[in-house]
Amino acid sequence: MWQIDEQALINIEVGAGILGTGGGGNPYLGRVFAQELVRQGLTIDVVSINDVPDDALVTSVGGMGAPVISIERPPQGDEFQSALRALERFIDRRFTHIVPGEIGGSNSTRPLIAAAQTGLPVIDGDGMGRAFPELQMCTFMWEGIPATPAAIADYNGYTTIFDRAADPRVLERYARAVTIQMGGASGYAYPVMTGAEARRTVIPGTLTLANDLGATVFAARQNRRDPVEAVLDLMGGQLLFSGKITNVTRRLVGGFARGVVDLKGTGNDDGRSISIDFQNENLIARADTGAVLAVVPDLICIVEEETASPITTEILRYGQRVAVLGIPAPEQLRTPNAIAAVGPRAFGYHDVEITPLPGVFGSGHKPLAVSRT
Amino acid sequence: MWQIDEQALINIEVGAGILGTGGGGNPYLGRVFAQELVRQGLTIDVVSINDVPDDALVTSVGGMGAPVISIERPPQGDEFQSALRALERFIDRRFTHIVPGEIGGSNSTRPLIAAAQTGLPVIDGDGMGRAFPELQMCTFMWEGIPATPAAIADYNGYTTIFDRAADPRVLERYARAVTIQMGGASGYAYPVMTGAEARRTVIPGTLTLANDLGATVFAARQNRRDPVEAVLDLMGGQLLFSGKITNVTRRLVGGFARGVVDLKGTGNDDGRSISIDFQNENLIARADTGAVLAVVPDLICIVEEETASPITTEILRYGQRVAVLGIPAPEQLRTPNAIAAVGPRAFGYHDVEITPLPGVFGSGHKPLAVSRT
Repeated sequence: MWQIDEQALINIEVGAGILGTGGGGNPYLGRVFAQELVRQGLTIDVVSINDVPDDALVTSVGGMGAPVISIERPPQGDEFQSALRALERFIDRRFTHIVPGEIGGSNSTRPLIAAAQTGLPVIDGDGMGRAFPELQMCTFMWEGIPATPAAIADYNGYTTIFDRAADPRVLERYARAVTIQMGGASGYAYPVMTGAEARRTVIPGTLTLANDLGATVFAARQNRRDPVEAVLDLMGGQLLFSGKITNVTRRLVGGFARGVVDLKGTGNDDGRSISIDFQNENLIARADTGAVLAVVPDLICIVEEETASPITTEILRYGQRVAVLGIPAPEQLRTPNAIAAVGPRAFGYHDVEITPLPGVFGSGHKPLAVSRT
Repeated sequence: MWQIDEQALINIEVGAGILGTGGGGNPYLGRVFAQELVRQGLTIDVVSINDVPDDALVTSVGGMGAPVISIERPPQGDEFQSALRALERFIDRRFTHIVPGEIGGSNSTRPLIAAAQTGLPVIDGDGMGRAFPELQMCTFMWEGIPATPAAIADYNGYTTIFDRAADPRVLERYARAVTIQMGGASGYAYPVMTGAEARRTVIPGTLTLANDLGATVFAARQNRRDPVEAVLDLMGGQLLFSGKITNVTRRLVGGFARGVVDLKGTGNDDGRSISIDFQNENLIARADTGAVLAVVPDLICIVEEETASPITTEILRYGQRVAVLGIPAPEQLRTPNAIAAVGPRAFGYHDVEITPLPGVFGSGHKPLAVSRT
């Protein structure tokens, strides 16, 4: 068990930003909010999935909605706790643990806010190992945890509970419809899991990984080591491309930010160009020859070339100098069930062959001493 | 207390159809479904609002969605009971009575289905005295009963519970968004009322009124009396217009069937023409001079000229020979709170003076002997 302190929150902001693969929203606001709670003396305890008892009662909390909306109207910070409490009222039991559903992007820090507010420990792990745009795109769902009961809440404390919608795609549609009515953003709490079920489905260690990834970036910057190289070493990834953004097209479709970013190579990639499709997250990177360089569920991360700072799809803009990283997906995202839920077909790419990136997710990760208390 | 038998269901179908003022959907399918339950030996007990104890626990059930959708895909019949049971699970108490929310149209018979299925008595009264398109348009709401908790259910038994959305307009938006995702139709259960609250807000006697209105139409047809005149006598209304439909325009906007029907006069109205705007229900009748003949909340009912059979807005068509009836709204719909909720401004008519129709709602109603058991 370790406690998340202010430095850990700053590390997680950067690490989760990179793991967000361009989506999941910016963890900045959640980090600031969680930091304020830590300053007030509230604690955020992190426990290993191995230390969660079989009969624990676990749920995941986070935010639903297109990232662009959370820029226009930031969450209030109480939505996640409200959703968790509404779900408790419905099942008439209290949760013992919170688990992040999505370690990438803004949903990395939201469970930490709820953990500080409720005093519940947060499990070191998550259900994606990255970010995905829809709630059925989560190990909990494709490994058979019932999607309902589930709760969402808005900034007024208005709550909605979904029950008996066994198919997570139905829950996704119902919850997103209400989220749009809630002004485009809501806090969610779902699913209801035992400790045993959580151990079977959680991708372990990703909260520590996000922390250590951020710490590694800061250390590299300080030690004048190339931070992009440091990220690739830790994550077991490869540099797909270095270049400059020449064009970004985006449109808001059904609550999602969809678009394409075009890049022109610099340095070793001079004379080449690539394009990356995104739907909140980066989904597929293609060379100018049409060859697929990387495809979901593998992680395609766009970072600043000099600093390795993550660039989310909503702040991509002309002229940015970036590195495009290809990071192999966690093994839990490469099973047949996973590929059906989060492979290219799940995003409408029916003619794309999956050629998994070589390497092992997080293979260069040696848990660091920083931030342990 | 009386029991609703098969003949009463047939009577209510016609009476509720007339009280539906063109909207609320056709009660036919609900009548057939309820009739089947009565044939199976289930009972539907009707109790006077005066006999409901203060500490009774009352809710209203019915269907949400545009009437045109219930023609394309009829309700299964279990949605209303599913919603009621979901609401019970959420509040962890059992209801003692069901009250119709809307006596006009298809929501007149749906509470009877749920009453037969659950064995709960149904209160003789409702929250509208007619039909209205949105759930906040109900005495329960404008007289201060909290809109939530509320539940909706679809034909799969999937349920959604809305909590702490104090403003019924918010509940309306949230519930309609999910209803659209449910395929355009859902069963609802809301609000949660004590017997004392129900007595303060229910428009009394409207289930008996609907039955007796239908019985009166059948009796007039049989006795070769003019059924339109019989309806007007019983309801305290007046004949606004007799004529032929010359045009109907309709469009589905945000889940509502909106449109205009144009009529050309016959008989005493030869040479005149009128038009009627509707949003599910008939809202405003205007002469060709622009003069307002009747306006919501007063009841504008279009019936077949010969038979007084109600014609809902979704089956209006060119060439129909109709009578347009103007029936004064119940007094509960003429208070300042009521006018704010269901007056012409609530439907977007900001420059219409309200000139209430003369007379008293149901003033010619003498409870009949038919159908009492």
